[in-house]
Formats: sequence, C-alpha cells, structure tokens
Amino acid sequence: METRVGIINVTGYAGMELARLLSRHPRVNLTSVTGRGLAGQTLAQAFPHLSALDLPITQEPGEVDFLFSALPHKASAEALLPYIRKGIKVVDISADFRLKDAGEYEKWYETKHPAPELLPEVVYGLPELHRGEIKKARVVANPGCYPTAAILALAPALKEGLISTTVIIDAKSGVSGAGRALSLNFHFAEANEDVSAYALEGHRHLAEMAQELNPLSSEPLRITFVPHLVPMTRGILATCYASLIPGKLPADEKGEKDLLELYRRFYRGEPFVRVVDSSPHTKHTLGSNLCLIHPTLDPRTGRLIVLSAIDNLVKGAAGQAVQNMNLMLGLPETLGLEAPALFP
Amino acid sequence: METRVGIINVTGYAGMELARLLSRHPRVNLTSVTGRGLAGQTLAQAFPHLSALDLPITQEPGEVDFLFSALPHKASAEALLPYIRKGIKVVDISADFRLKDAGEYEKWYETKHPAPELLPEVVYGLPELHRGEIKKARVVANPGCYPTAAILALAPALKEGLISTTVIIDAKSGVSGAGRALSLNFHFAEANEDVSAYALEGHRHLAEMAQELNPLSSEPLRITFVPHLVPMTRGILATCYASLIPGKLPADEKGEKDLLELYRRFYRGEPFVRVVDSSPHTKHTLGSNLCLIHPTLDPRTGRLIVLSAIDNLVKGAAGQAVQNMNLMLGLPETLGLEAPALFP
Amino acid sequence: METRVGIINVTGYAGMELARLLSRHPRVNLTSVTGRGLAGQTLAQAFPHLSALDLPITQEPGEVDFLFSALPHKASAEALLPYIRKGIKVVDISADFRLKDAGEYEKWYETKHPAPELLPEVVYGLPELHRGEIKKARVVANPGCYPTAAILALAPALKEGLISTTVIIDAKSGVSGAGRALSLNFHFAEANEDVSAYALEGHRHLAEMAQELNPLSSEPLRITFVPHLVPMTRGILATCYASLIPGKLPADEKGEKDLLELYRRFYRGEPFVRVVDSSPHTKHTLGSNLCLIHPTLDPRTGRLIVLSAIDNLVKGAAGQAVQNMNLMLGLPETLGLEAPALFP
Amino acid sequence: METRVGIINVTGYAGMELARLLSRHPRVNLTSVTGRGLAGQTLAQAFPHLSALDLPITQEPGEVDFLFSALPHKASAEALLPYIRKGIKVVDISADFRLKDAGEYEKWYETKHPAPELLPEVVYGLPELHRGEIKKARVVANPGCYPTAAILALAPALKEGLISTTVIIDAKSGVSGAGRALSLNFHFAEANEDVSAYALEGHRHLAEMAQELNPLSSEPLRITFVPHLVPMTRGILATCYASLIPGKLPADEKGEKDLLELYRRFYRGEPFVRVVDSSPHTKHTLGSNLCLIHPTLDPRTGRLIVLSAIDNLVKGAAGQAVQNMNLMLGLPETLGLEAPALFP
Repeated sequence: METRVGIINVTGYAGMELARLLSRHPRVNLTSVTGRGLAGQTLAQAFPHLSALDLPITQEPGEVDFLFSALPHKASAEALLPYIRKGIKVVDISADFRLKDAGEYEKWYETKHPAPELLPEVVYGLPELHRGEIKKARVVANPGCYPTAAILALAPALKEGLISTTVIIDAKSGVSGAGRALSLNFHFAEANEDVSAYALEGHRHLAEMAQELNPLSSEPLRITFVPHLVPMTRGILATCYASLIPGKLPADEKGEKDLLELYRRFYRGEPFVRVVDSSPHTKHTLGSNLCLIHPTLDPRTGRLIVLSAIDNLVKGAAGQAVQNMNLMLGLPETLGLEAPALFP
Repeated sequence: METRVGIINVTGYAGMELARLLSRHPRVNLTSVTGRGLAGQTLAQAFPHLSALDLPITQEPGEVDFLFSALPHKASAEALLPYIRKGIKVVDISADFRLKDAGEYEKWYETKHPAPELLPEVVYGLPELHRGEIKKARVVANPGCYPTAAILALAPALKEGLISTTVIIDAKSGVSGAGRALSLNFHFAEANEDVSAYALEGHRHLAEMAQELNPLSSEPLRITFVPHLVPMTRGILATCYASLIPGKLPADEKGEKDLLELYRRFYRGEPFVRVVDSSPHTKHTLGSNLCLIHPTLDPRTGRLIVLSAIDNLVKGAAGQAVQNMNLMLGLPETLGLEAPALFP
Repeated sequence: METRVGIINVTGYAGMELARLLSRHPRVNLTSVTGRGLAGQTLAQAFPHLSALDLPITQEPGEVDFLFSALPHKASAEALLPYIRKGIKVVDISADFRLKDAGEYEKWYETKHPAPELLPEVVYGLPELHRGEIKKARVVANPGCYPTAAILALAPALKEGLISTTVIIDAKSGVSGAGRALSLNFHFAEANEDVSAYALEGHRHLAEMAQELNPLSSEPLRITFVPHLVPMTRGILATCYASLIPGKLPADEKGEKDLLELYRRFYRGEPFVRVVDSSPHTKHTLGSNLCLIHPTLDPRTGRLIVLSAIDNLVKGAAGQAVQNMNLMLGLPETLGLEAPALFP
Repeated sequence: METRVGIINVTGYAGMELARLLSRHPRVNLTSVTGRGLAGQTLAQAFPHLSALDLPITQEPGEVDFLFSALPHKASAEALLPYIRKGIKVVDISADFRLKDAGEYEKWYETKHPAPELLPEVVYGLPELHRGEIKKARVVANPGCYPTAAILALAPALKEGLISTTVIIDAKSGVSGAGRALSLNFHFAEANEDVSAYALEGHRHLAEMAQELNPLSSEPLRITFVPHLVPMTRGILATCYASLIPGKLPADEKGEKDLLELYRRFYRGEPFVRVVDSSPHTKHTLGSNLCLIHPTLDPRTGRLIVLSAIDNLVKGAAGQAVQNMNLMLGLPETLGLEAPALFP
C-alpha cells in the first residue's frame, strides 16, 4: 500500500509547491491537504495550475502516514504536535524546529517555543550534512531558503579548514520568498524594477546559518548576512565571501583548480548539488531541486568567493522537504524530484 | 526495447524544451540530438538546466526510430527528408509542413517549398482536431504557437455554427516565442517594461489559422490577427472576438451557461484542454501542456469573446510535439506530459 | 504671484505623479497636499523619490487657488464640493464627474452621484476634443486611462465617417493602473510573468468611451472593451479594431497613406499626440504626456486597426490633469510637461 | 549666446540619455549629435522617445563649444583628441581617461592608451570628491557606474579613518548597464527572471575604485568587487562591507547614529547625495541624478555596511556628465538635473 501523505496549509507558496511535487511522486499518495481559508474547495478549484488534483481542502488533516506542515512558525509546531505524539513522521517547513536552542528561538522569533522538549531529537533537514540522522528521524526541520544556499556554499571550505572566521553572505532572492501575504513591498508596481536590501538589523535565517556552520569551524564564525529582494519570482543567489587561511590555497589557477576539486570531492554522489565551473544562474534551477555551486578565488585579494543558486521554493523549501521525506521513508532520495529545471 | 528518439537542432528554445520533456518520458529514449554550433559538447555542458543529460550534441542525427526537427523553416524539411524517405516517423516543429498548399507556403515564407510532394499525406498536428489522422501519420506538422491558442479557442463556436465570418484574434506572447536569435527587439533593456504589436502587415501564423478554421465555417472567415509582445518569458494569451449569429445564444446568463456547456462538451475527455469559468492566466500553464479556455459573451454587444492561454513552448511547441509523438507511436497520449504547471 | 495649487490625496500613484510634475512647473506652486494615512510627514519623508519636496502632508487642503483631487470616486466629489462652491477651479482625477448622466454613474459605480447638480457644467478633460470648453471650465473631469488611449485612437476615424458601428478595443495595461491598494492580483509573485484579461462583464471605463465616441458617430456604436493586465509597471497599449465603411479608403498602400495623412491632419498642432508610422511602444512614453498613435489597415480584411500608447499615470492621469490645469489657468498648455520620456 | 554642445555617439544608452537631459537644459543648446549607423536620420526618427528633437544625426560633430563622448573606450579618446587640441572642453563617458596610470589602463583594457600625454591634466569627474579640479578642467573623465556608487558609499568612512583595509563591494545592476550591444546574456528570455554574478576574474571598474579609494586610506585597501546582473532595466545597488577599526564606533544604536551623522556631515550641501535612514531602493532614483546612501553597522559583527543606490544611466553616466559640464562651464551644478525620480 502506498504511503498516505498530508500537507497542513497547502495555500501558501511552499504548500502549493509541495502539492505540485507530491502529485507526481511515484511512491506516496497525497491524500489530505488543509487550508483554513479555502476549506471546502478542491485543490483544482483553488489553484488552476493544479487542475488535475481534485483532492478536497479540509480544515484538519485526515488519516495519514506522513505529514508536512507549511504553516507559519508557532502555529506549525502546535499543529504538528498531536501527530508527532501519535508517532507520525513529520517534516516541518516552518522555522519552529530549526534552532536546537529554545532560547535562540525565543530571541529571534519573539515567542516561547511551542515544544522545546522535542528539540533534542529533531534533525535539521539538510541531507548533504545530516543524511544519516534524517533517515532515522521522526521530526525533521526543513531548512530556510537562505540557509540552504549559504550552508551548502560554505560547508566544504569550512570542513577543509580553508577559511578563517570572517564570513559575509550577500544573498539575492526572488519575491516569492516573502510568501503570499500582501504588503506594499511585494506589490508589483513597487517591487518591479527595484533592488533593495532588507533586514539589516538581522535576519532570522542568520541563526540557522550560525548553528550549522559554526560546528564546522575551529573558531566561532563572524557571519554578516544581508538579504536582498530582486524583481523576479523565484530563485536565490548567495554570494559568499570569506578570508582564506594563508597557505591553504595559492591564489592562482592551480588554487582555483584545487578548490573546484575539493568542492567536487565534498559533493561527490550528491544527487542535488552540482559544482559548476562558471558563475551559476538562478534561472538554471527554476522548478528543480538542484543547488548549483561555484567556488572561486578573488585573484587580487586571495579571498574565497562561493556562489550558490537554488530555487527558493524547491531546494529552498518544498523540494528539500520531499527529499527529506524520501530519506525518512527509506525511499530513493530523488523520487519525485528528477524533473529538470524549466529554461528559459 | 525502448523507442530511440532524436532531435534535430536541440539548441533553440523548442529543441531544448523537447529535450527537457523527453528526458522524463517513460517509454522513449532520447538518444540523439544535433546542433551545429554546439556539436561536441554534451547537453549538460551546453545547458546547465539539463545537467542530468550527458548526451553528446552531434552534427547529424544518429540511428533513431522517431525524429523531431526544431530547425527553422526550409532547413527543417530539407533535414527531415532523408529520414522520412527511410520510413522514420517525424514531427516537424517548423512551419514547413503546416500549410497544405505549397503556393500559400511560397507566398508567406517567400521560398519554394522543399518537398511539396509530401504535403498531401502530412497531418496538421493539433490532436484536438485531427487525432485520428495523427495516429496514422508518418509526418506531422506541429502547429504554430499562436494558431494552437487561437484554433482551440474558436473551433467549438465555429463547429456549432455560433459565429459569423467576423473574427479578430488579439494575441499576447512572451518573448521566448521569438526564439534565441538576437535582436534589439528582444534585448532585455528594450523589451522589458514594454508592450507593442508587431507584424501588422500580416503574420505567417494567420495562414494556419485560416486553413484550420475555415473548414469549420459555412462561409470563408474574415480573420484579423494581431500579435503583441509582452514582457514575460513564456505564455500566450489569445483574446478572440467574433460576432454571434443572431438567435443562436441569448446574451444573458443563460447564454453564458449554454456557451460554457457547449465548450465543455466539445472538449470532454481532452487531456490537455480545460474549459474554465473565469478569465485564464498564462501563468497557470507555465511549463505544462495545458490550454485553458474561457468562452464568454460580451453582455452589451452579444459578441463572443474567447480567451485561451498556453505556454508557447509547451502546448505551443515542444509539448504538443510530444503529444503528437505519443499518438503516432500508439502510446498513451499524456505520457511525459503529466507534470502540473509551475506556480507562482 | 504664483498660483497656489493643492492635491487632495497625494498618496496614491496619481497623486504622487501630480506632485512630481507640479514640483517642476514653472508657473504654479504646489503648496498643499493631503493624505490621511501619512498626514504629519513631509512628501520627502513619505516618498523618497520626492526627496526635494519638504511640503508637509496634511489632513485637509490649505488655502489654494487651484485644486486637484486624486481620491477614489464618491469620496472625491464629496471632498471637492466645498472648494468648488467657493469658486476654486478643480480637476478631478476620479471618475465622479466623467459621466454626464447621473443615472449612468449610478449604474456603473453602484452609488448615488454625490453632486448631480454640477454635471451640466463639468467638462470632460480630453483637450484634444474639448479644449475650448476646458479653458472656460470650473470643474474638469480628468478622463480615465483606458478612455484616453481609446478615444484618441478612434476619434479621427469616427469624425471622418470612416468606420461603421463595430468597435473592439483590446487594451493592455501595466499594473500601476490598478493603484496602490493591495490585492493578490497585483502581488509581485502572481502578476509577474503573467497576462490575463479582466472585467469581462464590463469595465467602468466603457461608459466614458461610449459617451465620448458616440457623438462622433452617425449611429450608436457597438463597443466591446476588454482590458488586460501585463507584467510591467506603467503603460497602456490600446489595440482598436473597427470595420471601415466600404468605399471610404482602399485597403492598399494608398489607403494606408491616406489614413495616416487623415490622422496627422486631425492631430496637427496637438502638442501631446504623435501620429507615428510604425507600431508604437508603450516604453517610448514612459514618464511623458505623449500619446503615440498608429492607424493602419488590415490588408486582408480591410479592417481599421489603430494602436495607441500612453503612460497610464501621465497622459492617462496626472499629466493630462496638469495639461487641463494649464488650459484652465490660461497658461501655455505644455508647461511642466515638456520632459521627454525615459528610455530605456 | 548659449553654449553649443555636442554628443559623439548618441546611439548608445548613455548617449541617448545625454540627449534627453540636455534637451531640457536651460543654458546649453544641444546642437550636434553623431552616430555612424544612424547618420542621416534625426534624433526624433531614430528614437521615438525623443520625438521633440529634430536634430540631425551626423557622422562627425559640427561646431560646438563643449563636447561629450559616449563612444566605447579607445575609440572615444581618439575621437576627442582633435577637439581637445582645439581647446574645446570635453567630458568623456568612456573609460579612456579614468585611470591616471597608462600602464593600468593597458593592463585592464588590453590596448595601448590613445593619449597618455593628456592623463596628468585629466580630472576624474566625481564632483563630490573633485569639484574644485573639475571646475578648472579641460578634460573630465566621467566615472564608471559601479565606481560612482561604491566610491560615494565608502569615501566618508575611509576619510574619517573608520575602516581597515578589508573592503567587499557586492553590486547589483540593471541590464542597461551592459549597453545596447546584443548578447545572449542580455536577451530578454535569458536575462529575465535570473540573477547571476559576472566578471569574477576581475571587473575593469575595480581599477577606478582602487585609484579613488586608496588615497583616502592610510594603508592600501584589499578590495573585492563582484558585480551582478539583476532583471531590471536601470539601477545599481552597491552593498559595501568593511571592517571597522576597533574603538572607532560602538556597534550599538549610538554608533549607528554617529555613523549617520558622520555621513550627513560629509555630504552636507551636496545636491545629489542623500544620506537616508533606511535601506535605499534603486527605484527611488529612476531617471534622476540622485545617489541614496545608507550606512549602518552589523550589530553582531560590528562590520560597516553601506548601501548606495543610483540610476546607472544618470548619476552613473549621463547625469553625472551633465553635472560635470555644469561645473566646467561655471553654471549652477544642478541645471538640467532637477527633475525628481519616476516612481513607481
């Protein structure tokens, strides 16, 4: 019998995208989707692009064997708790279970953690770093979109001890990353033909990056993270700058080659990471679960520059969630995620 | 054994899109792709979004059982001829075989037809109108993007004798419809934030529309067709205006309902046409083979207005080509084309 | 002494654009701007692009000699009434005074007209048709954006008796035309990369078009008007289709030339209408008060096609309002409106 | 008598933009424009947005009192030389005279400098740093677009000795920065909905930044500069990261305030620099000569982050060129440049 899978809150962009991906998954069956505002309609009625899915949207999840939540933080953990307690495996796309430290969570999200007792067993769902644990997990916290791009970009350099503590992550995101809630910032006439930085006082995703990158470093990193909004729908490009530890790599062609080789070795066998030898384009990941990474050396300063491109709604959200589900269910990791990107 | 399939000229947008779709087709095997400029590279090297395909791009097609051509007109028929003669079934995405009348072809394309002797047996590859013949065809001419949208929008009304000879088709296309050849008109800084009409003296696709729509009408239609360029990558919206024959439908709610019903009946069972009850968005078809159609009555004038939305590179090119291939090979028509659209 | 000018509701796009244009006007002085939500701030604080204007935004207009309102309909007339009664000349950018017939207003706007007694003296502010009356008016109703494009496109052909009663106006608008109020339809991630028609049941601007075009025709016109949303910030392209009265113009090159000549004669001396000899681009009007018009004949059907391009916020709103003010104040009509469009 | 001004190569984006700005300048007269490909046409014929300018485009400049060149490098200096020798003051928008060191020029531009003998007297035309010299100059080298944004962002911090040698400039540019020459990178269907970095091996503008910033620093700076292409027509946002020298500014609210105050003091009286207290948007500079600067401190690392937004074709090219001309001719610096930005 096929695994019955549910999505709590299918009505935001991550939820919709999960429905899109799961609808084509050969081994699980999307049997239940919730969404308060649209309960009573079918997926096909609510979302014309899902016109093949006549699954009804309900208030509460039906009986399922596996559950995703795409609710906002706080609400997400609260909604998942009863199912976790019943022993149903879950992937939470919200931020609720990403930070191991409930105090950090409270600091960044300005609310008490809804289930601190679960945190010790939760696994941060970045398969490239935590595959083994994900396979055994009951609760997986799906990483944020920016952290996915940034951590994958920097992990190899850190793990190999190439870089010192100075890390600057300048990220550019399409507007869908802000979700479906209305705001003048995302109003077409204002967001179009504009670039701006935001969250200069500190973006919540920084906490995830620090949590995941610090253990790979011998000293605590000093990470600056500045996200930017660019006028496109999907895609994140993270441009990561770091200081090489002197002597580790020559700032010349050989150094470049060694660096590329080192990254390729690190990600050998990874189904969704491609280490590419020229500057990656977000457009080459559209709709796919790929992360394209290009590490290079600034020839004048010897700094490491790593560029990393993903589709924020796929590898940065729903696609990675399906990848985690596959691992948790013992399925081949790429099931339902093999479709190439859409270009142009 | 799986059917071996080839693409002549994989390097334009239609060719690339064919490769994307065929790479996931469960019953055929993409074994050969050509592209003069990029011969020697693999698909993965040439097109990062196809990074999973290490098929080499060659000068000439290898041994295949089925062949697509995505070359420009004239070159396309010339390249296909030897294979057609060898008995290999082909779908030609170019315009070469679309017009039954070699004289019409010469008038519109300003060149002698490369293979007029084949025209009598060629089938115009719009499955919704010619499914039976496509199944038996050796050579299928894949329809143009605009004709696909316009013919599907108007065929039901014509076949039911609802409309008189006045037909106006105002179509809006994304820029990818113009292909990959460089021109100031498609230079980002000039095409962005702009709308304009083009081909006011007559667009070649008009000939296809007339050829396919006239046989459905009791009198010759007087079709005006004006294409427009809009600043987006993919998508065509055709807004079709026609005069209702008096007495056929009341210009009120009942008429609206009857009209919708009539269209739904016409397209009942069609896997890729959805008759929808509100104004369709091109974005809801992104990357998918769907055509969304909304027929309505202008309450003040009683005119028929039919809106039709497709992805110009899928139902308007590569997707329809795969649909035709499926029919020609006796495969289920939807194979390889089931993935929902990407939204947002 | 310079004329003191005020804007009621400077906080929408039309209001802001008025402030931009008036700030550079050599003969009037913008001395008062209102905007409930932002009262207390200066224009510079509220709108960084107006950083040179430290005019405070207030709740109510101060003492002025001339007043614009950019409020929504109903509220606009109500706010203007006391000033009109005091003898202050006004241009109303809302729809409140556009329709001569209070019954029509009530039908389309579903509310009682706030000041039907004023309607007889109000002038519809399209200077190309009503310049003389505008000069003498106390109250000018600034035309809607779509009507401006459509009426200017069709007036010459109607006045010359070229066309019969069949008129189809297919208009494409940038998203700023929808204003600053938030809606999922104008949310960047949904409006971007999409084209769709809207208001299929009838758009309010149709009433204005009919009111202005019918008097130019010997018989009542049967106008179909379908507006479309395209993914750009500013600009309207109206593609207008009409049936030529047989014998009026040959459907050949000579007819084309005569048509162009007829349009040029009609608009001779008009400072803001350019009759151009190829398909106009909305981008060529960006930020300017120009209307570009291209009349042509469909060579196959003999239909008239007229394309007309404007910036919806300038000639379609604030620029035309300033043009009207200039006329009402006896100033040169082009003052403050001479800046060329921004391209690219 | 008004000053007669000419533009060599009016047919690129910078040249066109110069024509747009000069056409409204109250004290100079645009009397001559050249452009090989379009010679024989008038500006109005070549560029519909300049429809008010019937100036003929010629092969060679006519008699002028002041000359701009918007040719590509190498060709630009060569074309200007005879006029410079005749004593005509010039602003060169190309890179030819920007670098003081002919060797550096040769290294970055891979060609011999066309007029090294002039370099000692040339002034780098950034008025905020070199106003006095510009006023007396015969030859002004108009800065590159990226250097304008980056130098203005960093100069105050360097001059005040706030930062050490680590400088990272991550810049995001609209596509018009790449000019009008066709390339697949700027083809709408490929550049749209995409972000990517380029010139990772070193962008020529880095040399200008180093030349201008190093003299403000006590030690040679180690500058990394990575430009990115974002899908919009105009605008540059430079996000600049630097390490504060410990003890110079507390990384708290007081430090933020002091920093803002320091920047405001530095740019006090500057007509085209606004130090703003929140993250600037490129859209707020559209079509205007403004540079919006926001300096801030990363609260966690104490790093300096300075954001700077310009319109690449105005303050980054043609507008700054006019500003330089005004200074060189002893005119008020803001003449012809006062129009606010276009928003939205």
